[in-house]
Amino acid sequence: MKRYDLDYYINGLKSQNNVVLAQSITLVESKRSSDQELADQLLNEIIKETPSTIRIGITGTPGVGKSSFIESFGGYLIEQGKKVAVLAIDPSSQRTGGSILGDKTRMETLSKNPKAFIRPSASGSTLGGVNNRTREAMLLCEVAGFDTIIIETVGVGQSETLVNNMVDFFLLMIQPGSGDDLQGIKKGIMEMAHGIVINKADGDQAKLAKRSKSDLLNALHLFAASETGWSTQVELCSALEKKGFDAVWQMITAFQDQMTGNGLFKQNRSDQNVTWFEDRVNFGLLQQLIDHKELMELQKELKVKVRQNELSVSKATSQLLNRVRQLLTSSK
Amino acid sequence: MKRYDLDYYINGLKSQNNVVLAQSITLVESKRSSDQELADQLLNEIIKETPSTIRIGITGTPGVGKSSFIESFGGYLIEQGKKVAVLAIDPSSQRTGGSILGDKTRMETLSKNPKAFIRPSASGSTLGGVNNRTREAMLLCEVAGFDTIIIETVGVGQSETLVNNMVDFFLLMIQPGSGDDLQGIKKGIMEMAHGIVINKADGDQAKLAKRSKSDLLNALHLFAASETGWSTQVELCSALEKKGFDAVWQMITAFQDQMTGNGLFKQNRSDQNVTWFEDRVNFGLLQQLIDHKELMELQKELKVKVRQNELSVSKATSQLLNRVRQLLTSSK
Repeated sequence: MKRYDLDYYINGLKSQNNVVLAQSITLVESKRSSDQELADQLLNEIIKETPSTIRIGITGTPGVGKSSFIESFGGYLIEQGKKVAVLAIDPSSQRTGGSILGDKTRMETLSKNPKAFIRPSASGSTLGGVNNRTREAMLLCEVAGFDTIIIETVGVGQSETLVNNMVDFFLLMIQPGSGDDLQGIKKGIMEMAHGIVINKADGDQAKLAKRSKSDLLNALHLFAASETGWSTQVELCSALEKKGFDAVWQMITAFQDQMTGNGLFKQNRSDQNVTWFEDRVNFGLLQQLIDHKELMELQKELKVKVRQNELSVSKATSQLLNRVRQLLTSSK
Repeated sequence: MKRYDLDYYINGLKSQNNVVLAQSITLVESKRSSDQELADQLLNEIIKETPSTIRIGITGTPGVGKSSFIESFGGYLIEQGKKVAVLAIDPSSQRTGGSILGDKTRMETLSKNPKAFIRPSASGSTLGGVNNRTREAMLLCEVAGFDTIIIETVGVGQSETLVNNMVDFFLLMIQPGSGDDLQGIKKGIMEMAHGIVINKADGDQAKLAKRSKSDLLNALHLFAASETGWSTQVELCSALEKKGFDAVWQMITAFQDQMTGNGLFKQNRSDQNVTWFEDRVNFGLLQQLIDHKELMELQKELKVKVRQNELSVSKATSQLLNRVRQLLTSSK
């Protein structure tokens, strides 16, 4: 990877150069310590910029048509004068190093549009979620002039929480289904979602989609109202027939207006900053341990005992952490 | 919660008392520090026992029929003379505090069988995965005489890796589907699975299930062989008609025989112990920070700056971690 100086990155981003944007994301993802220092400087410069943007997270099980939706909806947004960046978080690619957007051809039209920027997820980190740099990539996209950021993720659990913690609007995508199928949607995800979009509301499935919508709205009524005052909306769309995008976009802008009005839009982003800081610190603490000779030795010994079932994991953990506590409190 | 002494738990577990088993899991899950100390002692006692057991992880998207399968397959195993414990890891219940097995009626027959033990997932931890005590609960079940442990999880990503790190055999459950649906199965999960079971291979779907099996086997051929020498098997079953359980069980025992033969069964469990230790240490380090006055103050200051976008998260993280490093190295 070729190296540039701070000004190169800053000027490139400010002049909305997509090549420099891609390079700066690569810089931020680099594990080389000199790169990390430069990345830190760059990030510290750009956070002073606060462009007005909307960050949209999209989740849904494989097969519901997230990619097709993003491809078509992204095109629609560009027609409305937006600039659209698409990023991905893929928690399942730990072992294979694969990625959701790895196959760029899945968004062929969008990826060729100069007003779009598509970045596959960087994966392969054994620590998965917390160490990923999607959030930093998002900030870089924003400084480079992209006002609409779409972050795609798959599945349930950790990855959804991770994405929810970095976006303004969290969208759950499902396909038309019967009551039984709908029950498969985890309540936690449904509560997290600001909007649910039923894709594939076309052809034979159009009727089922309408039914699903009313089933969903009924189910949503059972939930306690959100503290933000926003109730989860349900919209139908067809990525195939490019229908329903107006309603989806209106839902998102209505949310943005309401949250901007009551001050929660900004507050949520501030809260997210803090959570992100905490996560990063937690991750970094382990690195400290690795770099500390005595603690590393102790950890090695304990690992041998744990491996041979001589010591329970709980006890080994206590022993190591007690020594860390001693070290932290005995120094000045 | 009523308190007992160490002997009470140990004797109760060894005499295969399911009430004491449930109590000891509650003890291990308790956040009270006196309980945690007792739990540590208990765990350290029981790891010296190494009963011969098989640990099976079952994953699959909601709706594929995991619960019905476990209900029927559990009954089948008990007929073969096994004692079956069922535990769950539910990563998506962070916010709601719900749980996969929360609704015990889903396994009504099995839960009434004295040779079965069913424990819903304890949830509600904001830190989700790593802090859960499913692994400890599993060890307790084993000492209490359960020789077949089934750990149910849902979805993709973090939770599957977590379960894979605590079981011997990892089973992916899917339902019959066309080629397109099968492509929805993440490659990472497919590679992780030791066996894939196509449930609902009954009635109208029997034919499609067979087709799915050959599609899957074709897809699996594309993968590089696993280092363990085991190739992922695919079996059909119907939880509804209680068919195919023999084949599923033969697959699992064949795996166990092969891995025991080449020594990998034991080695895998040792490796899992070490990974678990590392995860727990990582989690505990954050707690150290919270308990340290100076570091807590510094963290507070940095949080304010991060919140107000005065400092990037990267830079704030470096500042805090540098101070931790100083403290750790300046003391003796």
